[in-house]
Amino acid sequence: MPNKLALAAFLCALTLHAAAPTPADLIITHAYLVTMNTSKELIPDGAIIIKSGHILALGPSALAASYTAPRTIDAAGDILMPGMINTHTHAAMTVFRGLGDDVPDRLQRFIFPLEHKFVDREVVYWGSLWGMIEMVQGGVTTMADMYYFEDEVARGAQKIGMRGILGETVLNAPAPDAKEPYGGIAYAAKFIQDFQNDPLITPAFAPHAPYTVDAEHLKIIQHQADTLNVPILMHVAEMPYEVTDIRKQYDKTPIEYLDSLGLLTKRLLAAHCIFVTDSDIALMKARDIGVAHNMESNIKSAKGVAPAVKMFNDRLRIGLGTDGPMSGNTLDIINQLGYVAKVQKLANKDRNVMPAINVVEMATMGGARALHMEDRLGSLEPNKLADLVILDHNATTMTPLYDIYSTLVYAATAQNVRTTIIQGRIVMEDRVIKTVDIAKVQNHMRELSQKISATVTK
Amino acid sequence: MPNKLALAAFLCALTLHAAAPTPADLIITHAYLVTMNTSKELIPDGAIIIKSGHILALGPSALAASYTAPRTIDAAGDILMPGMINTHTHAAMTVFRGLGDDVPDRLQRFIFPLEHKFVDREVVYWGSLWGMIEMVQGGVTTMADMYYFEDEVARGAQKIGMRGILGETVLNAPAPDAKEPYGGIAYAAKFIQDFQNDPLITPAFAPHAPYTVDAEHLKIIQHQADTLNVPILMHVAEMPYEVTDIRKQYDKTPIEYLDSLGLLTKRLLAAHCIFVTDSDIALMKARDIGVAHNMESNIKSAKGVAPAVKMFNDRLRIGLGTDGPMSGNTLDIINQLGYVAKVQKLANKDRNVMPAINVVEMATMGGARALHMEDRLGSLEPNKLADLVILDHNATTMTPLYDIYSTLVYAATAQNVRTTIIQGRIVMEDRVIKTVDIAKVQNHMRELSQKISATVTK
Repeated sequence: MPNKLALAAFLCALTLHAAAPTPADLIITHAYLVTMNTSKELIPDGAIIIKSGHILALGPSALAASYTAPRTIDAAGDILMPGMINTHTHAAMTVFRGLGDDVPDRLQRFIFPLEHKFVDREVVYWGSLWGMIEMVQGGVTTMADMYYFEDEVARGAQKIGMRGILGETVLNAPAPDAKEPYGGIAYAAKFIQDFQNDPLITPAFAPHAPYTVDAEHLKIIQHQADTLNVPILMHVAEMPYEVTDIRKQYDKTPIEYLDSLGLLTKRLLAAHCIFVTDSDIALMKARDIGVAHNMESNIKSAKGVAPAVKMFNDRLRIGLGTDGPMSGNTLDIINQLGYVAKVQKLANKDRNVMPAINVVEMATMGGARALHMEDRLGSLEPNKLADLVILDHNATTMTPLYDIYSTLVYAATAQNVRTTIIQGRIVMEDRVIKTVDIAKVQNHMRELSQKISATVTK
Repeated sequence: MPNKLALAAFLCALTLHAAAPTPADLIITHAYLVTMNTSKELIPDGAIIIKSGHILALGPSALAASYTAPRTIDAAGDILMPGMINTHTHAAMTVFRGLGDDVPDRLQRFIFPLEHKFVDREVVYWGSLWGMIEMVQGGVTTMADMYYFEDEVARGAQKIGMRGILGETVLNAPAPDAKEPYGGIAYAAKFIQDFQNDPLITPAFAPHAPYTVDAEHLKIIQHQADTLNVPILMHVAEMPYEVTDIRKQYDKTPIEYLDSLGLLTKRLLAAHCIFVTDSDIALMKARDIGVAHNMESNIKSAKGVAPAVKMFNDRLRIGLGTDGPMSGNTLDIINQLGYVAKVQKLANKDRNVMPAINVVEMATMGGARALHMEDRLGSLEPNKLADLVILDHNATTMTPLYDIYSTLVYAATAQNVRTTIIQGRIVMEDRVIKTVDIAKVQNHMRELSQKISATVTK
């Protein structure tokens, strides 16, 4: 009798199951799922179920039959993977893209003067929105951004529907949004209050660098960040003169110096980290900081190659970044994949290091870890945020496809991204951005660039 | 009276001119012309007139009124430049793209065995056609290719309508198309006879490398190339063991060794040239050889960075190449531009070297010079062959556009190419290839790759 009861219960469950599929918001079927979960599971004909901005379930395409949703996308064999995470950029600098390339001492000769002259609320809003359009088109779903008027970047991110860890810049000089040195601290504090608890925005402090923010203000920023419970974004160990000056003044490496001030904590996302020693790396690991590796920017400026192979292998929290479009010059993480894989091989004189699978991990889970958001981002797993992208498997360079990681790193391009979904919302579908009028933003960009161009070329 | 006569004649000429514009085949107006001529002239609103496969005239858009043609394209502000020249590839290896990445000793462990097992006429025809589709999509109008069954590559090039300097491979071992060692020489001789005088194809000998073709056979090949008046394509100074073995055996560099055999002549297009000394470079210059610089391939294999800055500055004939898609892994010259600019800066520890304008020159006029075809290719100038490409100026990363060379090198992508014209023929227009059925070729590629995959993964 117990057996018969069990059978009846089982049949009843089956019937119920067939009769009442679980409601969801969006179902995607027949996708090649690149999960980036711990076991790097690949599901060649897979489905993913999205509800309330999260991943509800994923598995073989047959899974879709158990769910119902107002919208189902048949991916028809296209590649579906976690959205790329751009761990370091200055998106608004699209307005300056291509100015002052191939010249020495850009920061002091071009970037700071241009910023003082032109950067205002309008430039930051439209410039960062244009940058976010490029990122969404290139499969980036989250960015860590540092700039001035960062509240305008936040408004742009809300408009397009992109996730951002947004740091308001602080430095020891007047800035476009702060007349007094270190005025950014107060600006940041207000910005953080205005945008805390936003579902897409994580506001943050962005002290520019150890050579532009003094020890006293670094400590103040750390204290305020602790109080407000927000991240700190900073350029670290990027400049040769930063290394020599800190050595001269404190007899420390930049990493040791920051540690001595109490800045090396899990709040810190340190961009670049080109000039770090093995013992620095051990310290960075012990303090659990995040690292943004910006290969294209670092080599275009001839600064050098960060020891990302060691940092990755030593299991630091390391993701990939594009840097700003005046340095990079794009916001294209997919293009960055190939650079990281190839230039690390060159720098390490070993064609086996930084294999493709590790590079894809850095662009997804690595970025999530660098942001200390690996519980919510970076892989296709139930309960994570539904930040994901679909890539065209029919693209010319994607055929043939023997190894998906090799294809993504050595052959895919940003334009192969067809659809970008952020927090369950389709922000781009079949290359059409749904949330902003691109032509309008592009017109604004052209007007701004004509104004800049007229001044610069005089 | 003479004055009146002269006036009448003048008015008559004006009338005739107005009444009878010069006939042409194709007119393109309102293009941003990047001429790459000696003075690097830019014509922001320009027209180009094409007749009988050649450039008849170019200038401001008003020029178009003096010509008539069955077809006029309004470029509407798009960028029009000479077609990219890919000076080194093995296009058919698209069938193996993504196999054996990130592993040591690929040539002996993967490439040669795969080729012995799979390469036949069918693989070469479809594989090279797929590669040429990618190149046309990426704005490459001329390629220098080395492979087996090179007559099949030639047939593919005729089919799609692409220009090729095509070298039949010769080496000291049985090859897919030659049972006996050095059987490639006879194969090449026949291939050269079959395709000489073809408007698109320049057949050539391709001795594989100094370490796979002995001195005796290199001399035989040079003699036959002189007799048949054809180029020689060869891998040179690419492998560390090539350098050490030739040093041990002959106490020479690879370049000195080839010179001692009489191989360093204007017929030679030497691919890679990573391991060349300053005195080698002087010798290469004196002998007027061409060089193919393959940055992405060379660094992905961790071999090193060829001294292309010095070779370019010393005015050698140096162009850019992708290498084969099992090495590169794409056939994308536009992506290569950024690598060359950035990695040379890194290698030379100087952010000023290899400025964008020089990189664009290498991809166009430099390639033409490397092929000794600079009288016909590489720039937009009257009487040159009409090999040109149109790029989308509305692409996201192309806005703003302050400096066209910077934009092309640091921001443009292959997908920004809208239209590719080779010898006056529109091979691709608005991303649609006009001459071959892409889906059919892609299906063949997938069938071939499934066959290969089933064997490799066993």
